[in-house]
Amino acid sequence: MTSSSPILVVAGVGTGAGTGGSTARLFAKQGYKVALIARKANELETTAADIRASGGSAAAFPVQHYDYKDIRDAFDAIRKHWPDAELRTAVFNAGFAVWKPFLQVTEEEFKESVQTNIVAAAAFAREAILVFQQLEPNAAGVRGNLIITSATAAWRGNITTSAIAAGKHGLKGLAQSLNKEFGKKNIHVSHVIVDGIILTDRTRSKGEEFVNNPDIRLDPDSIAKTYLYLAEQDRSAWTFELDLRPAHEKW
Amino acid sequence: MTSSSPILVVAGVGTGAGTGGSTARLFAKQGYKVALIARKANELETTAADIRASGGSAAAFPVQHYDYKDIRDAFDAIRKHWPDAELRTAVFNAGFAVWKPFLQVTEEEFKESVQTNIVAAAAFAREAILVFQQLEPNAAGVRGNLIITSATAAWRGNITTSAIAAGKHGLKGLAQSLNKEFGKKNIHVSHVIVDGIILTDRTRSKGEEFVNNPDIRLDPDSIAKTYLYLAEQDRSAWTFELDLRPAHEKW
Amino acid sequence: MTSSSPILVVAGVGTGAGTGGSTARLFAKQGYKVALIARKANELETTAADIRASGGSAAAFPVQHYDYKDIRDAFDAIRKHWPDAELRTAVFNAGFAVWKPFLQVTEEEFKESVQTNIVAAAAFAREAILVFQQLEPNAAGVRGNLIITSATAAWRGNITTSAIAAGKHGLKGLAQSLNKEFGKKNIHVSHVIVDGIILTDRTRSKGEEFVNNPDIRLDPDSIAKTYLYLAEQDRSAWTFELDLRPAHEKW
Amino acid sequence: MTSSSPILVVAGVGTGAGTGGSTARLFAKQGYKVALIARKANELETTAADIRASGGSAAAFPVQHYDYKDIRDAFDAIRKHWPDAELRTAVFNAGFAVWKPFLQVTEEEFKESVQTNIVAAAAFAREAILVFQQLEPNAAGVRGNLIITSATAAWRGNITTSAIAAGKHGLKGLAQSLNKEFGKKNIHVSHVIVDGIILTDRTRSKGEEFVNNPDIRLDPDSIAKTYLYLAEQDRSAWTFELDLRPAHEKW
Repeated sequence: MTSSSPILVVAGVGTGAGTGGSTARLFAKQGYKVALIARKANELETTAADIRASGGSAAAFPVQHYDYKDIRDAFDAIRKHWPDAELRTAVFNAGFAVWKPFLQVTEEEFKESVQTNIVAAAAFAREAILVFQQLEPNAAGVRGNLIITSATAAWRGNITTSAIAAGKHGLKGLAQSLNKEFGKKNIHVSHVIVDGIILTDRTRSKGEEFVNNPDIRLDPDSIAKTYLYLAEQDRSAWTFELDLRPAHEKW
Repeated sequence: MTSSSPILVVAGVGTGAGTGGSTARLFAKQGYKVALIARKANELETTAADIRASGGSAAAFPVQHYDYKDIRDAFDAIRKHWPDAELRTAVFNAGFAVWKPFLQVTEEEFKESVQTNIVAAAAFAREAILVFQQLEPNAAGVRGNLIITSATAAWRGNITTSAIAAGKHGLKGLAQSLNKEFGKKNIHVSHVIVDGIILTDRTRSKGEEFVNNPDIRLDPDSIAKTYLYLAEQDRSAWTFELDLRPAHEKW
Repeated sequence: MTSSSPILVVAGVGTGAGTGGSTARLFAKQGYKVALIARKANELETTAADIRASGGSAAAFPVQHYDYKDIRDAFDAIRKHWPDAELRTAVFNAGFAVWKPFLQVTEEEFKESVQTNIVAAAAFAREAILVFQQLEPNAAGVRGNLIITSATAAWRGNITTSAIAAGKHGLKGLAQSLNKEFGKKNIHVSHVIVDGIILTDRTRSKGEEFVNNPDIRLDPDSIAKTYLYLAEQDRSAWTFELDLRPAHEKW
Repeated sequence: MTSSSPILVVAGVGTGAGTGGSTARLFAKQGYKVALIARKANELETTAADIRASGGSAAAFPVQHYDYKDIRDAFDAIRKHWPDAELRTAVFNAGFAVWKPFLQVTEEEFKESVQTNIVAAAAFAREAILVFQQLEPNAAGVRGNLIITSATAAWRGNITTSAIAAGKHGLKGLAQSLNKEFGKKNIHVSHVIVDGIILTDRTRSKGEEFVNNPDIRLDPDSIAKTYLYLAEQDRSAWTFELDLRPAHEKW
């Protein structure tokens, strides 16, 4: 057992208005130190500053690419930044999506999809697991939680989703393998299917009905609550996979 | 919106030492009035009395059979018992399981499996939904929650599980249909895969290691926490299905 | 090895215009003696007579109900009818479907769905397996083939499919259990998802486009070819599950 | 309708002793001209020569890498080689597999897994579909068949399969998307789960029992028969996915 402060690391924070930002804010309120990873350094620093302004502890760790080297460097920097705290929850929220007829998807887009959705997740998982393995289980019997944001495309391919479905299906296969391999080391890996559109800065443009009606779109703060619930599950009853969708979503 | 007390109804409470009993106790602590349904009247009354002794509000509604008539009668009795409260969460936790080579499963066992796992669930769902439909959505935008306890056999048939797999697969098909049909009426249906052995009075006989090591068996209180989490999800981010298993469970 | 004639038994032949009838005719042409089971004795006898008129060997074995007793009696009668032939392929093609909002499905319909889709399949599987177990493997290494006709509703519940989804999901769980239990005894169990509307006497009323365009509906003769393919697979490469749908079917 | 000779192209032929080689030989016997793609030019030429020696028509089209450019070049060469024949069936049988604990999988291995299993499949699918689109439907109503060899790891992640599961899950997501997008253009895409070990030159070393007992390993000639069956399905009843496993395989 330990009394060190817990650290949350989130990769894929974007503008801070989506799942990554909501998760960071919620965990910060619970006393976690919050390490933010994303590609856009400016946005990332703003999100970190907002959390600090609300009394939380947060820092930005921008990467150039979601590859093994940059992710390893980010984790090294996080350890140095909070040497006495313990990384307990890691959220992989990065991704790449393109909706197009198959013959219009370029080779570059296909490669980007498998790189960001799968290889980057493997790199992130690797760094998180390497840290978790060094820790003692916490009071709930957990060395660490790796939570992976996924999407409907992990369950079903569809017209115009060839590249995303390839990426998200692959992510699911990776996540399930990790869950089975590391469960017995008390490392909890979960995979969250977000099945619907999330209310973010970008999707606000869909109009007032979309913004104001929680029956038809996901609130990122609600997704964040699920992540906290997953991070608090004790080792006797862990969830690998769950889906999240608005009440009126057709599926 | 409403300020009436919420009611929880749980079918399949057994001795009170399993998922049903833990759920009843946890919701009672949250201020729910708790209606208990099961076949053994004595055990049921003891569980209700225990909850009342701890300051909760609980009553027993025994049924002879898990069929349409008895379940309808139980719901009628619940309404009369607490005329001013509102049924907000209904948990179907009944079931019938037999592990045997297929050729040894009797016709009666097969019928009991589909009756208790599927038809009884349909009867229970019907009564719960009929009540939920009359209510206004609560603060989270939910008319009511129907939570269905299921098992690994809903995902995979296996050697010696022909009758259970038929029953639990059928239960899953029912649950998914209900989720899709009633989501747009703000009724939340979820299906929980319990993938492992739960620590109960009956399974305690498996020995000290089993009893004392939460890595290898499910704590019914942890399952209950999940049910509370599902009941509290707001309408923007509902879960249909999740799995629960101990950290070291092979799957 | 054996040189006895093979028998095919098909349950659920209806008017002979659907999958059951097409399967019977195709196997008869391959030299199988064909035993037809269904509830309507008149229709059944007509189908058998048609096959005999085309030079095949066929007989009708009507049942009153798809229950254990009637199905056992039918198998007994088949054995007596062709004492020197060997039952090698058994096709379960019976079923019960009702598309209705959940609250309109009656208790009787729900019971009929689980009885005909699941319990009857278990009864049929039991009799077929009891026969297969007595036989030596054929040249392909197979004692017998049990082929189960299923539907999209075995994969997905949906609005208006609560009773069918319960029945077909249950059927799938049963089929998978049987495949795993009896594979090692060289009995091959498979489960065929028919995902679309089959061209039959009844569906011809959908109009000329439907009748004449194989892109949008299934030809029962094409389904029968798949059943023959499954029955001919050698023991080194057996299929448990496959789907069949028209080229233009949305899924 | 057309009377041109059909071409089969197979990518991933290896030594010719596995699925790719068996498929090539079987289709050659059916009158297909057979185009073989693989990385090892020598082996490939030997396989092509063997087919020609048996009276078939075959040619080798080696690639350096399974990337967009090399695959495009191979398809161009095939068109030039048989200008009057029509590509009707394309089998993607390439892949990359590594079984290791996750932390031992290198970045390069992970990249190779997604590249060969997913991106190469997308490149191959692209070229095949571009050709199919130019053709009229054949007598069965099919412009072309794209058959993708996959594996258990497309269904389930497991310990030591993180990289393969990522690759094969991704491949499945791609295949399903293509099936849905191109079905309505009468292009038939299918995905075959090989669930077990195939008898090849390489696996013969597992011993006599393995070699001689078809109950415990797959015969590549039996897999090839399935591919022929898929290629011959008419448009009214197409299979997207099927599994193949030996009779005694535990699953």
